[in-house]
Amino acid sequence: MPEQELIRMIRRMGTGIGDDCAVWRPSPGWEIIVTTDQLVEGVHYLDEKMTPRAAAARLVGRGLSDIAAMGGDARLVFLNVAWPQGLPEVWRVGFLRGFGAAARKWKVAWAGGDISSTSGPAVASITAIGEVPKGHAILRIGAKPGDIVYVSGKLGAARERVTPRLELGRQLRGVATAGMDISDGLSTDLHHLAEESRVGAVIEASRIPCAASGAGGLDRALNYGEDYELLFTAPSSTRVPARIAGVAITAIGRITRGRDVLLDGQPLVARGWEHLR
Amino acid sequence: MPEQELIRMIRRMGTGIGDDCAVWRPSPGWEIIVTTDQLVEGVHYLDEKMTPRAAAARLVGRGLSDIAAMGGDARLVFLNVAWPQGLPEVWRVGFLRGFGAAARKWKVAWAGGDISSTSGPAVASITAIGEVPKGHAILRIGAKPGDIVYVSGKLGAARERVTPRLELGRQLRGVATAGMDISDGLSTDLHHLAEESRVGAVIEASRIPCAASGAGGLDRALNYGEDYELLFTAPSSTRVPARIAGVAITAIGRITRGRDVLLDGQPLVARGWEHLR
Repeated sequence: MPEQELIRMIRRMGTGIGDDCAVWRPSPGWEIIVTTDQLVEGVHYLDEKMTPRAAAARLVGRGLSDIAAMGGDARLVFLNVAWPQGLPEVWRVGFLRGFGAAARKWKVAWAGGDISSTSGPAVASITAIGEVPKGHAILRIGAKPGDIVYVSGKLGAARERVTPRLELGRQLRGVATAGMDISDGLSTDLHHLAEESRVGAVIEASRIPCAASGAGGLDRALNYGEDYELLFTAPSSTRVPARIAGVAITAIGRITRGRDVLLDGQPLVARGWEHLR
Repeated sequence: MPEQELIRMIRRMGTGIGDDCAVWRPSPGWEIIVTTDQLVEGVHYLDEKMTPRAAAARLVGRGLSDIAAMGGDARLVFLNVAWPQGLPEVWRVGFLRGFGAAARKWKVAWAGGDISSTSGPAVASITAIGEVPKGHAILRIGAKPGDIVYVSGKLGAARERVTPRLELGRQLRGVATAGMDISDGLSTDLHHLAEESRVGAVIEASRIPCAASGAGGLDRALNYGEDYELLFTAPSSTRVPARIAGVAITAIGRITRGRDVLLDGQPLVARGWEHLR
């Protein structure tokens, strides 16, 4: 399929692609939140192992997970993709259709993007835009000593599909003092949250909701970088339900003075994935 | 320089990178406009020929040119980059510093992004966000029969540095009935504008402000895809100055009923660059 055909296909699926920019009116008194993420063939996914639809759904899920982590309502997504000239048409069409299907699933408008070719592996980049009531974005800064540390779901599962915790994030507005999604692994992301909030944390291995049992399960729950569950804090005086928006919520420890991040009393070593956020 | 060092460097230069998303409060009653664009090593630039600073400035310029074309005030930029493991540190640092310098030059906040590695050529993707007073975005739709067709600057120059016509775009708010930037070549982009507005156009070769003289100069002015000057329309009753914001403005023809796009009475063949906008 020539590139022009693909572009026409996207124009039918997307909105506002005819202009140089998408125009969007945020809700009065709300703030916008913006995140970008990318998938690189061979680094973040293997096209032999992952279908194009699954790869596209993963990219959308990762982008929207950041919106969820901030407590935002997701609104718009944009896709930039550079793919090899020889990439089979079925893969390209599958990827674009998968992107469109994921956008529809999460009720966001696919509002634009760019297609290029590359002599190397495919690189796909997403921009996701959401909005939150003014002053209600859930940030990494804000955790206070004495706050309880919570995670959603089970950690360390090898999920091909990313489920952005959008409804959970919305319900945590005004409840969570700080929060983020676990995209680099709990051991790394708890450090990120503590650093940004300038606090320490103590968590207990026995409380961590592991997807698999045993030492291997705990290791994966701590260091697997692709959970996309939410990590958040709330005051100990706040009653946090055991389930929110259908997702289990587990208290795994508390925020402390000082800057130490401890697991069962020992320093928690960050072994997750590090990259620019 | 390890990736962590680069990330710290970006955190110092950027704003709001510590969180999952950047949070931004648009002006009350304004709309936001969003565009994405990308550069692929070997397709859009060659690292032997272009310095990393120039490549980064070009990426920022291209993104902001879309904001200018819509009449927007540019506010935020985001950078996603996937680069080869073996890319020299001096190139990586130069590219990131160049991106930061260009953002400062055009007075936009570098608000986030992502760095990955790839086994192929570098791919750099920009998201640019601006805002316009509600209902004042300059769209491709809106040109009316009888409107005059204008272009800014001179066309067909081989400019390494893109100068987004931001101040010109702002001054065209409420003046231009339709507009866009010339990124694919005048011959292609005039078709785009006419198609979106569902009109025709007649332009005269002798009026086109060519950067070079002779038939070669006209060919480049019509078909060179990297001018980033503005193409816009305004009613014949509107007095459009010969210079706006320091840039020459030239009337090259007019909008017509019907759907034909003509150059000196002959069909104008679109020979510019086609891609997803």
